[in-house]
Amino acid sequence: MKKIAIVGGSGYTGGELIRLLQNHKDVEITTVTSRQYAGTPIAKIHPNIRDSNLVFEDKSPKELDADIVFTATPHGASMKIVPEILETGAKVIDLSGDYRFKDIAIYEKWYGMKHTAPLTNDINNTNTNKDIKVVYGLPEIYREEIKKADLIANPGCFPTGAILANLPLSKEKLVDNIIIDSKTGISGGGVNPAPNFHFPNCSDNVIPYNITSHRHMPEIQQELGLFSNVKVSFTPHLVPVIRGILTTSHTFLKPSKNLNIYRDYDKEYVKEYLIAIYKKQYKDEPFVKILEDNELPNLNAVRGSNYAHIGGFEIDDNGHLIVISAIDNLVKGASGQAIHNMNLMCGFKETEALNSYGMRP
Amino acid sequence: MKKIAIVGGSGYTGGELIRLLQNHKDVEITTVTSRQYAGTPIAKIHPNIRDSNLVFEDKSPKELDADIVFTATPHGASMKIVPEILETGAKVIDLSGDYRFKDIAIYEKWYGMKHTAPLTNDINNTNTNKDIKVVYGLPEIYREEIKKADLIANPGCFPTGAILANLPLSKEKLVDNIIIDSKTGISGGGVNPAPNFHFPNCSDNVIPYNITSHRHMPEIQQELGLFSNVKVSFTPHLVPVIRGILTTSHTFLKPSKNLNIYRDYDKEYVKEYLIAIYKKQYKDEPFVKILEDNELPNLNAVRGSNYAHIGGFEIDDNGHLIVISAIDNLVKGASGQAIHNMNLMCGFKETEALNSYGMRP
Amino acid sequence: MKKIAIVGGSGYTGGELIRLLQNHKDVEITTVTSRQYAGTPIAKIHPNIRDSNLVFEDKSPKELDADIVFTATPHGASMKIVPEILETGAKVIDLSGDYRFKDIAIYEKWYGMKHTAPLTNDINNTNTNKDIKVVYGLPEIYREEIKKADLIANPGCFPTGAILANLPLSKEKLVDNIIIDSKTGISGGGVNPAPNFHFPNCSDNVIPYNITSHRHMPEIQQELGLFSNVKVSFTPHLVPVIRGILTTSHTFLKPSKNLNIYRDYDKEYVKEYLIAIYKKQYKDEPFVKILEDNELPNLNAVRGSNYAHIGGFEIDDNGHLIVISAIDNLVKGASGQAIHNMNLMCGFKETEALNSYGMRP
Amino acid sequence: MKKIAIVGGSGYTGGELIRLLQNHKDVEITTVTSRQYAGTPIAKIHPNIRDSNLVFEDKSPKELDADIVFTATPHGASMKIVPEILETGAKVIDLSGDYRFKDIAIYEKWYGMKHTAPLTNDINNTNTNKDIKVVYGLPEIYREEIKKADLIANPGCFPTGAILANLPLSKEKLVDNIIIDSKTGISGGGVNPAPNFHFPNCSDNVIPYNITSHRHMPEIQQELGLFSNVKVSFTPHLVPVIRGILTTSHTFLKPSKNLNIYRDYDKEYVKEYLIAIYKKQYKDEPFVKILEDNELPNLNAVRGSNYAHIGGFEIDDNGHLIVISAIDNLVKGASGQAIHNMNLMCGFKETEALNSYGMRP
Repeated sequence: MKKIAIVGGSGYTGGELIRLLQNHKDVEITTVTSRQYAGTPIAKIHPNIRDSNLVFEDKSPKELDADIVFTATPHGASMKIVPEILETGAKVIDLSGDYRFKDIAIYEKWYGMKHTAPLTNDINNTNTNKDIKVVYGLPEIYREEIKKADLIANPGCFPTGAILANLPLSKEKLVDNIIIDSKTGISGGGVNPAPNFHFPNCSDNVIPYNITSHRHMPEIQQELGLFSNVKVSFTPHLVPVIRGILTTSHTFLKPSKNLNIYRDYDKEYVKEYLIAIYKKQYKDEPFVKILEDNELPNLNAVRGSNYAHIGGFEIDDNGHLIVISAIDNLVKGASGQAIHNMNLMCGFKETEALNSYGMRP
Repeated sequence: MKKIAIVGGSGYTGGELIRLLQNHKDVEITTVTSRQYAGTPIAKIHPNIRDSNLVFEDKSPKELDADIVFTATPHGASMKIVPEILETGAKVIDLSGDYRFKDIAIYEKWYGMKHTAPLTNDINNTNTNKDIKVVYGLPEIYREEIKKADLIANPGCFPTGAILANLPLSKEKLVDNIIIDSKTGISGGGVNPAPNFHFPNCSDNVIPYNITSHRHMPEIQQELGLFSNVKVSFTPHLVPVIRGILTTSHTFLKPSKNLNIYRDYDKEYVKEYLIAIYKKQYKDEPFVKILEDNELPNLNAVRGSNYAHIGGFEIDDNGHLIVISAIDNLVKGASGQAIHNMNLMCGFKETEALNSYGMRP
Repeated sequence: MKKIAIVGGSGYTGGELIRLLQNHKDVEITTVTSRQYAGTPIAKIHPNIRDSNLVFEDKSPKELDADIVFTATPHGASMKIVPEILETGAKVIDLSGDYRFKDIAIYEKWYGMKHTAPLTNDINNTNTNKDIKVVYGLPEIYREEIKKADLIANPGCFPTGAILANLPLSKEKLVDNIIIDSKTGISGGGVNPAPNFHFPNCSDNVIPYNITSHRHMPEIQQELGLFSNVKVSFTPHLVPVIRGILTTSHTFLKPSKNLNIYRDYDKEYVKEYLIAIYKKQYKDEPFVKILEDNELPNLNAVRGSNYAHIGGFEIDDNGHLIVISAIDNLVKGASGQAIHNMNLMCGFKETEALNSYGMRP
Repeated sequence: MKKIAIVGGSGYTGGELIRLLQNHKDVEITTVTSRQYAGTPIAKIHPNIRDSNLVFEDKSPKELDADIVFTATPHGASMKIVPEILETGAKVIDLSGDYRFKDIAIYEKWYGMKHTAPLTNDINNTNTNKDIKVVYGLPEIYREEIKKADLIANPGCFPTGAILANLPLSKEKLVDNIIIDSKTGISGGGVNPAPNFHFPNCSDNVIPYNITSHRHMPEIQQELGLFSNVKVSFTPHLVPVIRGILTTSHTFLKPSKNLNIYRDYDKEYVKEYLIAIYKKQYKDEPFVKILEDNELPNLNAVRGSNYAHIGGFEIDDNGHLIVISAIDNLVKGASGQAIHNMNLMCGFKETEALNSYGMRP
C-alpha cells in the first residue's frame, strides 16, 4: 500500500484525485494539503467526498511522508516545492506547467516568469540535477520513460486532446500546418471565480480567449514537432460546459511517401488509410478509442472518465482534413492521466481506478 | 457469477445499469434487449460504453436465460412481461410504476389504465399469484423483505427523494401536511425527445408541470402514510439540469409526545432534535448522508452516485420547517437503487458497484 | 426631454437601465457613474451597448445634474447618497433595499446594519424629513402614490414575483400561511463572481440558500400583510438560469365569506372563482397577465420583458393550492419596474420603453 | 401601413418575426399561417406573444392578401408556394435555402432534391420567369439590388456570420483557403425535437455534425467566391446555447499588392491594416460593429439583436490569422435580417424595429 500525498488539494484537480483514488486498491491517501483550508475536513470543500477522515493540512514538502506526491499547485508554485519533495525520496507527479518544457527559454517566454528550479533535460543544459529523471507524462508517447521517471510533468488539458488527435499525422509526416480549434468546459479555468467563469456571463455564450497567445500552444508544438516539421496554431474557446474539451483539428494532407494526394485521389480510400494508421498507433492504448462508421466524438461519452475518443477523418473537396478528439479535461486532461502515470511508475495495473466509463447523459 | 438480463436497455436507465454493473464483481450482463435496436452494438446507442461485445437483441421473456432481470420498460409494458419472466425462475427488478402500489385501484386511477397482471399483496386481494413475493424496493424501509423478494418494484425517482426526506418525520408523527416542491433534471423525462425537453425550450427556463396531478404523488403518499396520518402534496418542476432531483419539503411541526412545540420553543433545540432523529434513522444506511453544520444538499455532490444527501432542518418564525434532499434521479432514483436491491436479493456486498462518490464539479 | 443619471451603472441592473432606456422617447441618459470604471466607455463593461458616447464618471450626488436619478447601488450605499440627491431637486428611484421598509427596525434586523438616513413614513416616526414622499414602487399596489412620490423604493426581485402571485388571495382574505418556494436565475446575485455563481459549481445544479433567513422574506410579509393576517414563509433556490424567477406559492384556502371551502367543494368552481378574482385584480395592469386554460408560466415567455405571468390555480385533494408566477428578475424584478415607476412619476405613457415581449426561445 | 403575412409561423423564426414586428410602425401583421395549428391563438404556441388577436390560419398562397409575405417554410416547401405568392403581386422574403443559389445544380446536389420552380438568374438559365428579380438578401453586399427585388432569398444563419467575417479579406484578395469553425446555438436546429437537441444529450456537450457536408458550405463559397478565388471549408458544432453563432475563421494571409507579408513583417502593423479595411468596408452598415482594443465577440452582446460583432485580427508566429464574428442566428441570421430586407424593399427606415441592443446577461 503506497502512501499518497496531494499538495494543493482544494481545487478541482485535487478533488478529482481524491474521487478517483478512493477505489484504487494499491494506494492510500495519507495527506491532503491546503494552506487556505488547513484544519477543515475535506467534505466541506469537496461535498461529494463523504466518510473520509481526511482533513486539509498545512505541511511543508519535507513533512509529507509519502511515496507518491501529486502537486496540484499553480505554475510558479510547483517549482518552489518539487525539488524539495524529490529530496525526500518521493516520486512526484506535477500537474502544473513548470516541468513540461524541454527548453526553459520557451517556458519563461510563454509563462512570463523566471524558472528558478529547472530539472528537465533541456537543450540548454540548465538542469542542475542530472540524477532526476523528468518525463512529460503522456503515456501514449512516453510509456517506457514514465515507468522509470522520478518526476512527471503531467500534460496540459488542451495539449492532451490536441496531441492525441494529431500524433499519427505527425509521425507519418502527412501534414505541415495544423490548426487546432478547441472548445473547453469552464472547469478548465479552475476553482476560483472570475468574470469569464461567472454563470451569467459564460452561460448561453461562447467566449474565445487568448487567441494566438495561449501557453498550451508551445506545449502542443513541442510534442507534435518531435516527429515531423509541423507548425501548430491554437485557438481556445470557453463553452458553457462543466467538463470536457472538444478539439477540432483542421489541416491539409500533403503528399507523402505513403499517401500520395493528387487531384483525383479517392477520399474514401484516404479516410480508410487514416483510420488504419490511427488504429495502429493506439491499438495497445487502454484509454484511446478510435471512432469510425460515422460516429463523432461527444463530450458526454467521456465525461468523468479517462478515455479519449478520436473520430472524424473527413476530407472535403478542398483537401481540408478534420480530426476531432474529446476528453474530460479534469480526468484524461489532468487527474486521471496523473493516476495513469502513477500506475505506470509504481508497476500497478495500468487501468487501476481508471476503468469507469463516461457518464452519459 | 450471476447472469443479468436488461429488458429495454436503450434508454437512460438501461445505459446506467450497464455503466454501473461494468465494475460489479459478482455479475455478468449476458443480454440487453431492445426491439427498436435489435442487432445494433450497444456503443452505437450508449457511446460511453466501449469495448463491450454486447449487441441489442429482441428476445422474448422466456429466452432471457438470466438469474436477475431488470425490466427498464415503461409502465403498462412491464405488466405484460414480468409474470412470464418470473415463471422462468429469474428474479425481477422492475423499474416501471406497475408494481409499486399496494392498492391496484390507485394505480389504475393515476396511471389511467387497467392493470392486467397484478401481483402485489394489495388490499383488494387481486393478487392471483400468492407465491410471488413483491416488495417496494426502497431499502431504507424494506431491506429485510427485499432480501426475500421475487419481484422488486423499484421506486420512482421523485418518491425516493421525497420519502427519504420525510421518513423520520412521519415515523415520529411530527407532521401532518407535507408539501413537496421538487426540481428535477431533464433526464427524468427519458430518452425520447419532446417539446418540454427540447434544449431551446427548457434551457434557461424552469417548467412547472403536472401540478396536483403527477403520478408519483400517490406513491409518496402510500409510503409516508404507512407510519402516520400525513397528507402529501407534490409539485414537480423541470430545471435545466441533466441529472438530479432536489426536493424541498415544506411542513409545519405539530406538538407530539416527544416534541412539544409551543409558542416560545427553542428553535435551535428543535433543530438538534430533528438532526438526531434523522441520524438515528439512517445510521446504518450506506447511501444516506445527513448534512449539518449549515451544509445544504447540492445536486453535484451526488451526481452519478447512489447517495442521497439530506439537510436543512431550519424552522422560521412561523414554525415552517424545511428539509431538503438531493439524489441523482438515474442512480439512487432508478438504476443504482435497482442494483442495491439486486445486491440485497443475491446476498452480495450491499455497496458493490455503488461506492463511487458524486462527480463534482 | 428629461435628463437621467444612473448611479452605479456598471452592474447588471445598470446595464438593463441603459438597454431599456435607449428607446425611450422622453428621456436622455446624461450621466452614468461608476467609481471603479471612471473614464471607461460603457461598451467596455456592457459590450452589448454600442454607439453610445457615454463614459463612466465618478460624480458626487450634487454633480449629477439630472431630473431623475436611478441609484443602482448596494444596500447601505444608497442611504449614504439618496438624501443628498433629493436635495438637488431630482426624483430618485432606488434599487436597493434601503427604503423598502415601513419599520426601520425590521430593516436593521434583517440587513444587519444601522439605517443612518431613514426617510420612510415608518411606524417609529424616525423619518426626520417629513416633506419627502417615499413610496414602495410596486405599481400594482401603489400606482397613485407613485405618481406623487419623490423617492421610490424599487421592490426586490423575489418580492415582486411573490407579492403579485398572492395579492388577490391576501386581499380577499382567502389564506393564512403562504409558503413561497422560489427558483431564481444566477444574475440575481449580481455581477460580482462568487463560488455559488461560478459556472462549474452552479451549472447542472440547484442550490438552496438562506433558507428561513433571506431578507426578501420580511419585504414580502410587509406588503402581503397589509391586506390580511397572512404569514409568509420563503425559500429561495439558485437554478442554472441566467435571468428569471419562477415563484411557486403553496397554500391552503380557508373558508371565507366569499368562498366556503367544505369537504365536498367543487374544485373546478373554486379554480374558476380564483381566476376571476385574479383577472379582476389585474384587469387594468399592462404588465400582469393571468394564464388559464392549463397554461403555466415559463421563464422564457417573460425573458427580457417587463411582464409578469401568473398561472396555476390548481387545488389537490388535500386542499393545497398552487399559484405560480414568472418574471425576469432584472426587468420586472428591477430595472424595468424602475422605468415603469419613472413613467408614472413623470406622466409619460406608462408602457413607454417597456412594451417588448419576452424573448423565447 | 403595409400588410404582412407570415407563412409557416409556428416555428422559432416565425415567432421572432412576430416579436420584432410588434414595434414596427409601418407594418401590420394580418395573417400568420400554420397548417398544423390552424385555429389556435398564437399565444398558445408563442407564449411570449400576449394581447394579440392573431390566430393561426390555414390559407393558400392566393388567399394571403398581403403586401409582403415572409415564407418561414422548410426548403423544398418554399419552392412550391413562392411562385404563386409572387403572382398575387406581393413581394416575398423566403427564409429557406430554395432561392439562395445562383447555380441550381449546386442546390440540387447539396439539398438532395430537384428544384421544381427555379427563379434565380442562374448560370444555367433555368429561370423561366425573367421578370422576377431575385436577390440574395445580405444587405452588406446587395443593398441596392435588394431595394428593387421581388423575391429575397434570405441568407442562411452560418453564411451570414461567415461571409461578414471574411468579406473584406476576399474583396482585398488577401487569402485563399478559409477554414471556418462555427459554434451554433441549438435553436438553429428549429422547433422540432430530435435526439441532438434533446437537453440531456446536448447540454454539457459539444456536438460536431455534418463535417465537410453541411449545405451552408456552398452558400458561403458562392458569396465569398464572388470577389476572389477563395476556397471555403466549413465545420459546424452544436454548443449548449439557445441562440447565437460564434464563427472562428482561420486562414493564412498571402502576399498581395496592398499587403506584402514577408518573413519579418510587423504583425501589429498588419493587424491595424486589417482593422482599417474592415472598418472601411462596414463604415455605413448599421448592424455590423468592428471590435478592436482587444475586445473579442461574445454571443451575449448580440443576443436577441440584429447586430453582428466582428473582432480578433490576431496573427500568430505561423502567419495564422483569426477573425471571429458573433450573431444571433434567429435575428441577424434569420428573422431580423428578413425585416432588414423588408425595410430596404419598402423604403422604410433601415433600422426600424431592429435597433434594440443585445440582451446581456
